[in-house]
Amino acid sequence: MTTLKVTAFRWVPPFAQGLVRDLRVRWALEEAGLPYEQVLIGPDDQKSAEYRELQPFGQVPVLEDGDFKLFESGAIVMYIAQKSNTLLPADAEGRARTLTWMFAALNSIEPQVQNLNLIDLFFPNEEWARQRRPGAEAMLRGRLEALSAWLGAKPHLEGGAFTAADLLMTTVLRFLRHTSIVADYPNLLAYQDRGEARPAFQRALAAQMANFERYKPAA
Amino acid sequence: MTTLKVTAFRWVPPFAQGLVRDLRVRWALEEAGLPYEQVLIGPDDQKSAEYRELQPFGQVPVLEDGDFKLFESGAIVMYIAQKSNTLLPADAEGRARTLTWMFAALNSIEPQVQNLNLIDLFFPNEEWARQRRPGAEAMLRGRLEALSAWLGAKPHLEGGAFTAADLLMTTVLRFLRHTSIVADYPNLLAYQDRGEARPAFQRALAAQMANFERYKPAA
Repeated sequence: MTTLKVTAFRWVPPFAQGLVRDLRVRWALEEAGLPYEQVLIGPDDQKSAEYRELQPFGQVPVLEDGDFKLFESGAIVMYIAQKSNTLLPADAEGRARTLTWMFAALNSIEPQVQNLNLIDLFFPNEEWARQRRPGAEAMLRGRLEALSAWLGAKPHLEGGAFTAADLLMTTVLRFLRHTSIVADYPNLLAYQDRGEARPAFQRALAAQMANFERYKPAA
Repeated sequence: MTTLKVTAFRWVPPFAQGLVRDLRVRWALEEAGLPYEQVLIGPDDQKSAEYRELQPFGQVPVLEDGDFKLFESGAIVMYIAQKSNTLLPADAEGRARTLTWMFAALNSIEPQVQNLNLIDLFFPNEEWARQRRPGAEAMLRGRLEALSAWLGAKPHLEGGAFTAADLLMTTVLRFLRHTSIVADYPNLLAYQDRGEARPAFQRALAAQMANFERYKPAA
């Protein structure tokens, strides 16, 4: 069996540490019990033509499975889930519903989360950001309220087990850690906490964080 | 065989006509040669508890296939592609690459497109929008430039045939029709034009637009 390889950043600033999207792939691999190696890159690699062949937008992660290469964290998590027959229901309809919630995490929730983060983490002192923030937060809260209503008292988004959709949704909620917004939806906070308490998540997080300690720039 | 049902809006304002996401599902169904019925809804339905059971965020489309129900246009397009064995390569790796580009369309490109549209179509007269627009356009252009570089002279994002990923990406580029931005990337414009020239797209577009003519509010 070829060793799976996951691309990740050597180092990122503290606001991004523990959030970079290779976390999703490491987590899925840990859930699946699949060993992997990491391939660490830096800003120069992101711009290189060679890397752009692997990841056209210069982002991480990339998954290499022998000669087969894949990008987009959502697609990689689905690939790992199918390959390992974990994180997914067994039936086709259950798998389609899982994919629905994977797209919901990355297309219906994450863009609103990232719009708030763009303001808070990248442009906190801009006048446009100050003026726009209440509207951006309101749009995000509209989506979180709907998500909270859907989840209700259920432990998972769909069905009886933790799936690839729960994995992605947990990482999206995590992007809001610099705010107290998720705590305003107690069932979402408990859902996020349950996801992050999984041993596979803890191993994935530790593996990402270890690089940032090791490659920390000299003070 | 049960008749497939697709939820769509009875009417939307002109800026959204021809762009609403049920277009993606209609297009996929037309490519697959699967007949369908439409279920038209309005703003009151979007808020109802009954509809939120089908679509937690109150959006369209929803696909009903007998008792099985699905939302998120990306997931529905994949479901139709798998059900009809069209719009997808035959092999597992080709399918994983198609899913990669489906996520790229909806998570790496669309959020940047929607941020520009939020400014141009919803808040054109706001001071924050005027200040933010250059930065939002620059972020979008960064992604389009990378997409254009990837596409190069290829007719499709991956492999030798039009796939579910090309279908989604074409609809994302279409969201920029109120600008001339796509025309600055001639291969992307030609790619979009080729997608929109497909007879299945034309039938899907006509079917969506017919409702807006029929349910046009009295002047």
